[in-house]
Amino acid sequence: MQLGIIGLGKMGGNMRTRLRRAGHDVVGFDTDPTLTDATDLADLAAKLDAPRAVWVMVPAGDATRQTVAALADVLSDGDIVIDGGNSRFSDDAPNAALLAERGIGYIDAGVSGGVWGLENGYALMVGGEKKHVDTMMPIFDALKPPGEYGFVHAGGVGAGHYAKMVHNGIEYGLMQAYAEGYELLKASEHVENVPAVFKSWREGTVVRSWLLDLLDRALEEDPNFDALTGYATDSGEGRWTVEESIRLAVPLHAISASLYARFESRQDDSPAMKAIAALRNQFGGHAVKE
Amino acid sequence: MQLGIIGLGKMGGNMRTRLRRAGHDVVGFDTDPTLTDATDLADLAAKLDAPRAVWVMVPAGDATRQTVAALADVLSDGDIVIDGGNSRFSDDAPNAALLAERGIGYIDAGVSGGVWGLENGYALMVGGEKKHVDTMMPIFDALKPPGEYGFVHAGGVGAGHYAKMVHNGIEYGLMQAYAEGYELLKASEHVENVPAVFKSWREGTVVRSWLLDLLDRALEEDPNFDALTGYATDSGEGRWTVEESIRLAVPLHAISASLYARFESRQDDSPAMKAIAALRNQFGGHAVKE
Amino acid sequence: MQLGIIGLGKMGGNMRTRLRRAGHDVVGFDTDPTLTDATDLADLAAKLDAPRAVWVMVPAGDATRQTVAALADVLSDGDIVIDGGNSRFSDDAPNAALLAERGIGYIDAGVSGGVWGLENGYALMVGGEKKHVDTMMPIFDALKPPGEYGFVHAGGVGAGHYAKMVHNGIEYGLMQAYAEGYELLKASEHVENVPAVFKSWREGTVVRSWLLDLLDRALEEDPNFDALTGYATDSGEGRWTVEESIRLAVPLHAISASLYARFESRQDDSPAMKAIAALRNQFGGHAVKE
Amino acid sequence: MQLGIIGLGKMGGNMRTRLRRAGHDVVGFDTDPTLTDATDLADLAAKLDAPRAVWVMVPAGDATRQTVAALADVLSDGDIVIDGGNSRFSDDAPNAALLAERGIGYIDAGVSGGVWGLENGYALMVGGEKKHVDTMMPIFDALKPPGEYGFVHAGGVGAGHYAKMVHNGIEYGLMQAYAEGYELLKASEHVENVPAVFKSWREGTVVRSWLLDLLDRALEEDPNFDALTGYATDSGEGRWTVEESIRLAVPLHAISASLYARFESRQDDSPAMKAIAALRNQFGGHAVKE
Repeated sequence: MQLGIIGLGKMGGNMRTRLRRAGHDVVGFDTDPTLTDATDLADLAAKLDAPRAVWVMVPAGDATRQTVAALADVLSDGDIVIDGGNSRFSDDAPNAALLAERGIGYIDAGVSGGVWGLENGYALMVGGEKKHVDTMMPIFDALKPPGEYGFVHAGGVGAGHYAKMVHNGIEYGLMQAYAEGYELLKASEHVENVPAVFKSWREGTVVRSWLLDLLDRALEEDPNFDALTGYATDSGEGRWTVEESIRLAVPLHAISASLYARFESRQDDSPAMKAIAALRNQFGGHAVKE
Repeated sequence: MQLGIIGLGKMGGNMRTRLRRAGHDVVGFDTDPTLTDATDLADLAAKLDAPRAVWVMVPAGDATRQTVAALADVLSDGDIVIDGGNSRFSDDAPNAALLAERGIGYIDAGVSGGVWGLENGYALMVGGEKKHVDTMMPIFDALKPPGEYGFVHAGGVGAGHYAKMVHNGIEYGLMQAYAEGYELLKASEHVENVPAVFKSWREGTVVRSWLLDLLDRALEEDPNFDALTGYATDSGEGRWTVEESIRLAVPLHAISASLYARFESRQDDSPAMKAIAALRNQFGGHAVKE
Repeated sequence: MQLGIIGLGKMGGNMRTRLRRAGHDVVGFDTDPTLTDATDLADLAAKLDAPRAVWVMVPAGDATRQTVAALADVLSDGDIVIDGGNSRFSDDAPNAALLAERGIGYIDAGVSGGVWGLENGYALMVGGEKKHVDTMMPIFDALKPPGEYGFVHAGGVGAGHYAKMVHNGIEYGLMQAYAEGYELLKASEHVENVPAVFKSWREGTVVRSWLLDLLDRALEEDPNFDALTGYATDSGEGRWTVEESIRLAVPLHAISASLYARFESRQDDSPAMKAIAALRNQFGGHAVKE
Repeated sequence: MQLGIIGLGKMGGNMRTRLRRAGHDVVGFDTDPTLTDATDLADLAAKLDAPRAVWVMVPAGDATRQTVAALADVLSDGDIVIDGGNSRFSDDAPNAALLAERGIGYIDAGVSGGVWGLENGYALMVGGEKKHVDTMMPIFDALKPPGEYGFVHAGGVGAGHYAKMVHNGIEYGLMQAYAEGYELLKASEHVENVPAVFKSWREGTVVRSWLLDLLDRALEEDPNFDALTGYATDSGEGRWTVEESIRLAVPLHAISASLYARFESRQDDSPAMKAIAALRNQFGGHAVKE
């Protein structure tokens, strides 16, 4: 099947490769002339036979919203746009409405897999109308891992990005759990070889997982993480997950703690803890560190 | 190789089976006459050729301590005792010291695998002297899953139970992360089929794990968990993990939150939240629920 | 000075009383004919001499936004509107812009004090232009407690509600700290008379506060909180505080935990803990509570 | 009445002064010859008329335990020892038992008030037998603030230190709540003068408290806390509070988070966040900070 892909970076470029390996006819567009197959969006549209399908794989936010708006001008009735970026689910309904005015369908697709997706397949969580999803199934089947898992039609427009958002929120909690356990083992005088403990957990344990495999791999490369600082950025999904927990009154103690731990990791000094130190000095004459 | 096992319940009984399948000569003792191979500990000792090895698989705490003390009386110089129960790591040094007075070696073994261990193998984290561990390797090799993972000699006496304790602390955090994500998906109007989302995550995602596979399995059996109440007990390891975080000044935000969530799940009403309600009524005249 | 007040409920009504006691000329409007001094907003405007000042004290959200919009139609160039409700700070800039089109000034005022404000005075945190704040100072002075505290001009439009939002976020954390300590004392076998302990803390301690005084008062009325259930609602400020912490990457572990504790207090059963119970059953054959 | 005090540091010295001002006859002992009234404990005992009362005000732990043991040798049947230090409540029963062998009574007294206690009085939470407490009431009355608050006989031996422990646990949560609110206000673009906001809160608000007064005082001295680093130590009570929450299955989300925040404040880098950074690099090719 024919597909246009906009955005040929780390994710989009590998997806083009995986789809071509599966025999699909992919026309890519990127602002990098060494990567692109088309000169602009109009040229991309012209290179695809109607009804067209175009996968948007550009940074979430303004870039995605502007790309969708531009596609509304170059695509036609019966075409389909898939937003495969890390958009906030709340962007999907406006995008779908804008395209629907021209008769263009819309699917939101949460994509997991990172740099491993090219070989292992990309897990896909999609939202939209069933008829649009049915049309796109050959593409989804080629992108996803083989077998019965790795794809879900989670609901109407927005459901795909929503499921991906929660997936990432869970991911924050999982990573934090391993990280806290790692720190405790490192701090204790009882365990001599912490990397060996993590390696052993890869089979037979309750905590075995792909993330654990990766942690073992990272510890093999740098057993004390000497080359790293404890500085962790966050993309939007963790924040949106906590925002949704507030809207829906769902207690997310562990996931919110994981998000806050990342915020803390990026602070040179903590204004809150300055206030604590100041208070302790006031009431107890406790020495402070100046 | 020959091994005595004390305690033939769900864990010990299956371990006996797995070892016998591997060709080992296992003599089991249990107070249940339909399970036991020996009439008492002295008979168990008599049925084993010196130097003997005896695996203790009874409830942690008093039962294990008393069994170890009893073994000190029936075993001899050169024998080895392995405590494979969920003992607190701080029990290991006293147990080892008691046995050392008679020349008996001691290994602590954290065992993971639950009801799946019989078929998949049991992950083993052991602590003790290298010479004792070397002696027991044929048994460990038969119990563990095949391949390079599933076994670690984590350090001296106590290191095995310590590693297992942290393993379980991490497990609390992992389970809580999935559970929080589950609750958020259930609460949202955006996703229609929550079990299908979890099922899809089993391949290609960052959150794939054995626990996720089990959650999918549980959702297959009861898609809304209608047959369950949200009541979660805890064994000691989660508590000990948090206790150790206090001793070692290691922040465990996510793991402690997971432990507290279990405490909350067992409360009919929260005294703390009564105090909150009382305060709100005092200062704001907010209505309370009586 | 002359002031119109819209909304004569628990807060607005008491504020009218306090202002009249201080000699101000207050015209109140309420939809309750037994409370109102004016038939409608136009009548309220007509009863005030220009330049007018009107204090809006109605529920936050649509009710406040609609009242401000209606005031834009009945007030004139040089008048001032004060929103004293619990509006989200993000409502202030749009309200101010709408009124500015007619030359009407705008002040947002966070008001603390609850049912005690009539006698003790209301703490005020205001945002807006200095010239508007200066004009309104006679009203603020009459509402606030006597002395040097209880009033701050926190910044431009929105700063008053923002400061009040953070005030309430802190309040959540303070209440949770007392509540957790209360529950621990109740749970322990060591302390015999928990209410007496709280009463003793009212002087000489580090934890003495107005909230503690109220808690003592509540325990005097009902020493075991027998008449209460542990069910705590939340108004918007706690949620907005956590939302802002996400926007600004500020870790709020204690305040978010306090908000989540309230969410939990309102759940009959926890879907998350059902998932935990299901998982424990899957891997360990742990009994579940059905 | 006559009292011996052992330990004339910041707390004990001021208590001696406050008691003398109230007309009591105090004999102090300290290893510092410029402070002490007695050459050693035997001399202290000799300088007091039987039945004697001796207040121990030395560092918690070994120092206190050794002092109590030494007192058992120099005191006699009918005397009373009061431990006013920050001992863990679990030290009290052994201390009381040791002294009871000689017929010496024991009271544990949690003391709050810090450097302010000399002028304001010290809040006292005491545990022990009623007859011993009755005997000591003249001393307690002189130490405590005037009025109906500031003293509680909380229960049997250990109850005083237990109540003080929970008092300090609550204090951790209160301080953290103010500190988090402070950091959020500092981070926001909406509020211009953060110290002025805190100052205003001292009257009329729900969050007014002695700690808030101290925070205002600290901000007056150093409005941006420029002279401080965000480094907060902890004495034992916060840790013991969390340990007790584990023993008693009481969820303490806010208080434990406050304790962990202090642990974090003392880390140069976070091993846990190194693990997070390593994982992100593994699965996503996310750049890390080296």
